[in-house]
Amino acid sequence: MAIEQHILLAVDALVLGYTPDSGLSALLIKRRYSPFEKMWALPGGFVKDDESLEDAVSRELEEETGVKIEYLEQLYSFGKPDRDPRRRVVSVSYYALVKPDIYQLHATTDAEDVGWFDINKLPELAFDHRHILEMGLDRVRNKMTYEPIGFNLLDEKFAFADLLKLYEAIIGDNKKLIIDRANFKKKLKSLGIIEELPESRKQPGSGRPARLYRFNREQYFEKKNRGVFEMLFPHRS
Amino acid sequence: MAIEQHILLAVDALVLGYTPDSGLSALLIKRRYSPFEKMWALPGGFVKDDESLEDAVSRELEEETGVKIEYLEQLYSFGKPDRDPRRRVVSVSYYALVKPDIYQLHATTDAEDVGWFDINKLPELAFDHRHILEMGLDRVRNKMTYEPIGFNLLDEKFAFADLLKLYEAIIGDNKKLIIDRANFKKKLKSLGIIEELPESRKQPGSGRPARLYRFNREQYFEKKNRGVFEMLFPHRS
Repeated sequence: MAIEQHILLAVDALVLGYTPDSGLSALLIKRRYSPFEKMWALPGGFVKDDESLEDAVSRELEEETGVKIEYLEQLYSFGKPDRDPRRRVVSVSYYALVKPDIYQLHATTDAEDVGWFDINKLPELAFDHRHILEMGLDRVRNKMTYEPIGFNLLDEKFAFADLLKLYEAIIGDNKKLIIDRANFKKKLKSLGIIEELPESRKQPGSGRPARLYRFNREQYFEKKNRGVFEMLFPHRS
Repeated sequence: MAIEQHILLAVDALVLGYTPDSGLSALLIKRRYSPFEKMWALPGGFVKDDESLEDAVSRELEEETGVKIEYLEQLYSFGKPDRDPRRRVVSVSYYALVKPDIYQLHATTDAEDVGWFDINKLPELAFDHRHILEMGLDRVRNKMTYEPIGFNLLDEKFAFADLLKLYEAIIGDNKKLIIDRANFKKKLKSLGIIEELPESRKQPGSGRPARLYRFNREQYFEKKNRGVFEMLFPHRS
């Protein structure tokens, strides 16, 4: 094919982390090289000729941060002609939501540092990475209104308050989303996605012990595969 | 940048059309050249160095089919290393939903023919275009459960049955979606997205005249901008 094209293809990874103590965070690397030298950015890099986009993003993420994630979900492709000052680079971005404390961070070659940053206290980001990050947050917020998230982010047994806290951390100060706590709980239970356990947990301080729940993964995947999604909580109207 | 990469970047357009008489269709071109010579495919082609992905897909679509669409929405990027038998091509796909009868079709250079094909009677498609098409249909079906579609597909004044017919054409034989007609109507009215008009339309045959409605675009966009989406009808559970 006699196609003359001078566009490079890259992948970027938006990895969001959650812990009850530190809330929602994003995994960033500090760029060792120009352009945007010393600035923080999403991990990512160029696709090799023989690897799939999914393999490329997993590889780049692991190379630059030490974080190995098998499956990232595609977010969006960014292709403005001037988004990279060097030459034309189109980036296919991916995202994942993980428990940060199970990973050992390790910055290498292209990255001179790596860290988790509180989503509410982010540094200025290189390229259009702030835009990618905002779009990723919007995607997660939108998705969680019709699909439960957080399977892998909470302990095996959790109090309903833990789940709410996770959802509220993701919503942040986004005024468009509201959770009606009672209805949300009722819906998750009636869908069979969370299961009440016989156990309860003593709360710090006084107060009643909190009932514990667990996710019913089978129910969830069974419903998901049959295309059952319901609005779990309404957006603000 | 000393990056050695041999990947070409393309865009593909999934244009879905709807008319009450012929239902849902897809705009396809017949390939003039190898590979997949004489096979039907989605319109598309390579991105120029200085154009955005959106400009590229609009240009390729118009060049190959005569159909000019200002805005197509990004669907997904397809990047399996072997999806093109010639060399590595990554395709960013876009989609749009239009009224087919307002366009004059005109096949040019790369395309030796162009036409609208009933979604239920599609020919075999080149490359992974069948997969792209299925993903696009899924996206539209999923989207329409929480956002009304069809603004541009129905007449200015329409009977509620016209809107239902459109939705049912998109759902097709997908068993995962069901519309509760009465609730759907109530919801659209209570959201202010459709407005009852004083007029009604005489139905073919006997029967009561059908009440006419119009979309309230302002209401819709106002709600959309404030992030208000509600489940318009449930998936089957």
